[in-house]
Amino acid sequence: MSDLQNTDAPALPGIVVTGASGRMGQMLIRLIADNPEVRLAGALERPGHAWIGQDVGECMGGAPLGVAVSDDAVTVIAQAQAVIDFTAPAATVAFAELTAQARAVHVIGTTGLEQAHLDYLKACARHAPIIRAGNMSLGVNLLVGLTRKVAAALGEDWDIEVVEAHHRMKVDAPSGTALMLGEAAAEGRGKTLADLRTPAREGITGARAPGSIGFAAIRGGDVVGEHDVIFAGEGERIVLRHLATDRAIFARGAIRAAIWGQDKGPGEYDMQDVLGLN
Amino acid sequence: MSDLQNTDAPALPGIVVTGASGRMGQMLIRLIADNPEVRLAGALERPGHAWIGQDVGECMGGAPLGVAVSDDAVTVIAQAQAVIDFTAPAATVAFAELTAQARAVHVIGTTGLEQAHLDYLKACARHAPIIRAGNMSLGVNLLVGLTRKVAAALGEDWDIEVVEAHHRMKVDAPSGTALMLGEAAAEGRGKTLADLRTPAREGITGARAPGSIGFAAIRGGDVVGEHDVIFAGEGERIVLRHLATDRAIFARGAIRAAIWGQDKGPGEYDMQDVLGLN
Amino acid sequence: MSDLQNTDAPALPGIVVTGASGRMGQMLIRLIADNPEVRLAGALERPGHAWIGQDVGECMGGAPLGVAVSDDAVTVIAQAQAVIDFTAPAATVAFAELTAQARAVHVIGTTGLEQAHLDYLKACARHAPIIRAGNMSLGVNLLVGLTRKVAAALGEDWDIEVVEAHHRMKVDAPSGTALMLGEAAAEGRGKTLADLRTPAREGITGARAPGSIGFAAIRGGDVVGEHDVIFAGEGERIVLRHLATDRAIFARGAIRAAIWGQDKGPGEYDMQDVLGLN
Amino acid sequence: MSDLQNTDAPALPGIVVTGASGRMGQMLIRLIADNPEVRLAGALERPGHAWIGQDVGECMGGAPLGVAVSDDAVTVIAQAQAVIDFTAPAATVAFAELTAQARAVHVIGTTGLEQAHLDYLKACARHAPIIRAGNMSLGVNLLVGLTRKVAAALGEDWDIEVVEAHHRMKVDAPSGTALMLGEAAAEGRGKTLADLRTPAREGITGARAPGSIGFAAIRGGDVVGEHDVIFAGEGERIVLRHLATDRAIFARGAIRAAIWGQDKGPGEYDMQDVLGLN
Repeated sequence: MSDLQNTDAPALPGIVVTGASGRMGQMLIRLIADNPEVRLAGALERPGHAWIGQDVGECMGGAPLGVAVSDDAVTVIAQAQAVIDFTAPAATVAFAELTAQARAVHVIGTTGLEQAHLDYLKACARHAPIIRAGNMSLGVNLLVGLTRKVAAALGEDWDIEVVEAHHRMKVDAPSGTALMLGEAAAEGRGKTLADLRTPAREGITGARAPGSIGFAAIRGGDVVGEHDVIFAGEGERIVLRHLATDRAIFARGAIRAAIWGQDKGPGEYDMQDVLGLN
Repeated sequence: MSDLQNTDAPALPGIVVTGASGRMGQMLIRLIADNPEVRLAGALERPGHAWIGQDVGECMGGAPLGVAVSDDAVTVIAQAQAVIDFTAPAATVAFAELTAQARAVHVIGTTGLEQAHLDYLKACARHAPIIRAGNMSLGVNLLVGLTRKVAAALGEDWDIEVVEAHHRMKVDAPSGTALMLGEAAAEGRGKTLADLRTPAREGITGARAPGSIGFAAIRGGDVVGEHDVIFAGEGERIVLRHLATDRAIFARGAIRAAIWGQDKGPGEYDMQDVLGLN
Repeated sequence: MSDLQNTDAPALPGIVVTGASGRMGQMLIRLIADNPEVRLAGALERPGHAWIGQDVGECMGGAPLGVAVSDDAVTVIAQAQAVIDFTAPAATVAFAELTAQARAVHVIGTTGLEQAHLDYLKACARHAPIIRAGNMSLGVNLLVGLTRKVAAALGEDWDIEVVEAHHRMKVDAPSGTALMLGEAAAEGRGKTLADLRTPAREGITGARAPGSIGFAAIRGGDVVGEHDVIFAGEGERIVLRHLATDRAIFARGAIRAAIWGQDKGPGEYDMQDVLGLN
Repeated sequence: MSDLQNTDAPALPGIVVTGASGRMGQMLIRLIADNPEVRLAGALERPGHAWIGQDVGECMGGAPLGVAVSDDAVTVIAQAQAVIDFTAPAATVAFAELTAQARAVHVIGTTGLEQAHLDYLKACARHAPIIRAGNMSLGVNLLVGLTRKVAAALGEDWDIEVVEAHHRMKVDAPSGTALMLGEAAAEGRGKTLADLRTPAREGITGARAPGSIGFAAIRGGDVVGEHDVIFAGEGERIVLRHLATDRAIFARGAIRAAIWGQDKGPGEYDMQDVLGLN
């Protein structure tokens, strides 16, 4: 980016990345650096991290990017137009407060948030836009809508199962995306997932309860993320499948969300809003 | 069926099955005999067939059904409320004329019809309903609508491929259903399949043409019918899949169409109409 | 079968089917009746069943087969050369004693046998051949051998998962076949499945334990049986898949086992023996 | 790498990468630089390429690697212990001559080689080891052996189909790996693929020829490479599937081959040899 930019040109939105040294953090930084519509405004890590004070591009083994990794979230976020945050619940609520104070867009991909965290985010969203999604890919968000539609079109004699596969390091099951798909299926039938959810099957389970929604989780290798929604009838099946093969789709979705949010008012949004699928 | 039926009760629609000795014919006869909403009104075979004059249930190796196989289409169809017909184009147009004269519903699953046949059917449909579909399953017809919708939602940077698998005896490729799905995908993009269709790939094909729709056909064993519509983007894929595992779904769809058509006026209909998907 | 058979010709092996009115029982009876290498020697049901005393062919809605359904297992089995038995553990051990007394082949597809049942069968096998398998299809038994081989060839950095899908009425998970595949994978690594088995995943499970074997069960519709053995490495996966689409494969495998066993001595056998895969 | 290495320690094998600026070339260079068992001995590009004379690490956007890109293949290869080469047939035969003169290992992943090229390589292999494979992944090479074995175990009543999917830029069909799998299936049946191969299906093909081997190709997105070998029988199917999700598996396989070849004599080898699968 030239230092001599025409001052009439609108400045590019500056994005801060939290958890800069993580797998998703590094991917976000690389894609922001390569994207002409945005600029990298900061890279945060926890105090004491080995990267603090060094150029983040060099830390990642590449060319310098002109941004030093910092542990001073207050100062860095104060200058941001957006914060992209795939960290952990406690960190995310702290970042939410700083981001709201900066009137910047907070894009949240953090999972495992509980009700208390969600209540806190709701309060922050009164001051600035928060865009939060369990999965930021275009494909999965499209699949959510299809699942709702198919569940509504087919009667209860079509059994619904959600099957997902992820890499060996994933610590929870089913995935947040699988639950999002299950929720959409339940909505299509005018119910909530809490009413219909069947836990993973082990031992003597008895026959399948009519109308229930089952889940199965596969773990292995470095599978990025695969989800099947199966509708099994008599003599036929429909399967809606999403395969993610590159984590970059989640990072690109988050950057797209950060850009989309620049002219939005305070409030809570999701990727259905960003992608215009609602 | 009792001969002493209460005369106030509406008579069940009588269905004639053509090609009675074929695999689909026998399945239709069995399902009609078991279905309390309809009755078997006739079973047709070509003159000279070994079954002519015998009880069709016994010919099929089961209990008698009280209906003799006949080669007299004129007389048999004259008494029908519906004719279900999975035969060949020349036979189908002949049955269409007789069915129109009887003001009965003609349900057509015959494939390979050419323009001259279609013109003839259009003329017959001025007198009675004709319901025609390349595939009579609920699942496939639902998939057609989903395919159109997804193709419209995703840009041309998502490549579309239709893959189908059928049993070893199938003589043509791609399947009629695959073409129906490809047509729906093209419509979703505001084009016709003729504009976008890529033939099966063999040899040096060059890179994929942007926006094109490809087809691949698998043949083996006794596979009833499997169709995948693949939308392949950068780093992710959506797949819409239908699996047919029992030919009975096509027969049940045809019977459902025959019942649905009982109170419809003359005209041409398809399974999207029958299933309320339009 | 003619009553005037040439008495020099070797008599066809007579097969008794237990649980004659069940889905598998009826399929066995139909296939035995159609198979020129064997004859139907008896059809057993429990005392009080509505079919007792009637021709089994007519009970099944078809032509008479000349065999009345009986509840007298002692007399019927005494005249058999083989008994095919897909019932329940308690019934199976009772049939095993009668079959051993008759020096006939006992083909057992019953699942859910516990150690006490297995001990009893071992005792019976001292008098006549017992052929027992959780799955009688050629394909699955071939897959068992491939699974053992691939597990042995690949290191522990390839994670193993077994995924199975069955119809909505199945009451247990994982399927017996899935466990058989898991056992083969464990053997390939010089372990037992008891050492490596991970139960179905639900909630916070932690990362995958290296070397473990996971299971996932899908239930819905009328799926006959599908099994995937997944080997997931870094950047690649191998999947060994079996799809059963017609329950007849299990019945045909059982009949093949009954014929194979005719010239075998007392002992316990499985389908690997019958199919010559050992 | 330290310049002060203990001179008693065996030197690491030095590997030259051809086509250094290509997608596979860059991946090889990155993986060689990260692998403590080998060292990067050279990076070749064609005369006139923009990278010539510059540090290859910096050209790739990363830290310097201490190796300048060169167009002088004679000099660079003369100092190598191995050359890894994913280029084009004409370049590959030229590199083969230089590599043979250096008595170095030539690892060849180039596709599209014709008989004249193969004859030339055979001559070069009289002087040094040549390791050539259409696909260098462990998984695919294992699958080749399984395919041969299953084809041999199952009769001709099991139809064989090979289905492959690749990214939108691939210019030929079926893939070299698909043909390798088809060849293995043919061998399993004591035939050659030339005898059994059926081209991709389009139009009126007639029923499947017994014993034939069919191919289908899917193209879209950035799919790295997926291969299914389907064995379709009556009522059941076996599918052997390989999924490649990261091109690094091919690069890692090639590096493994370069190391494996260090103590081998002149001759032609493939990945079955390297992986110990023969």
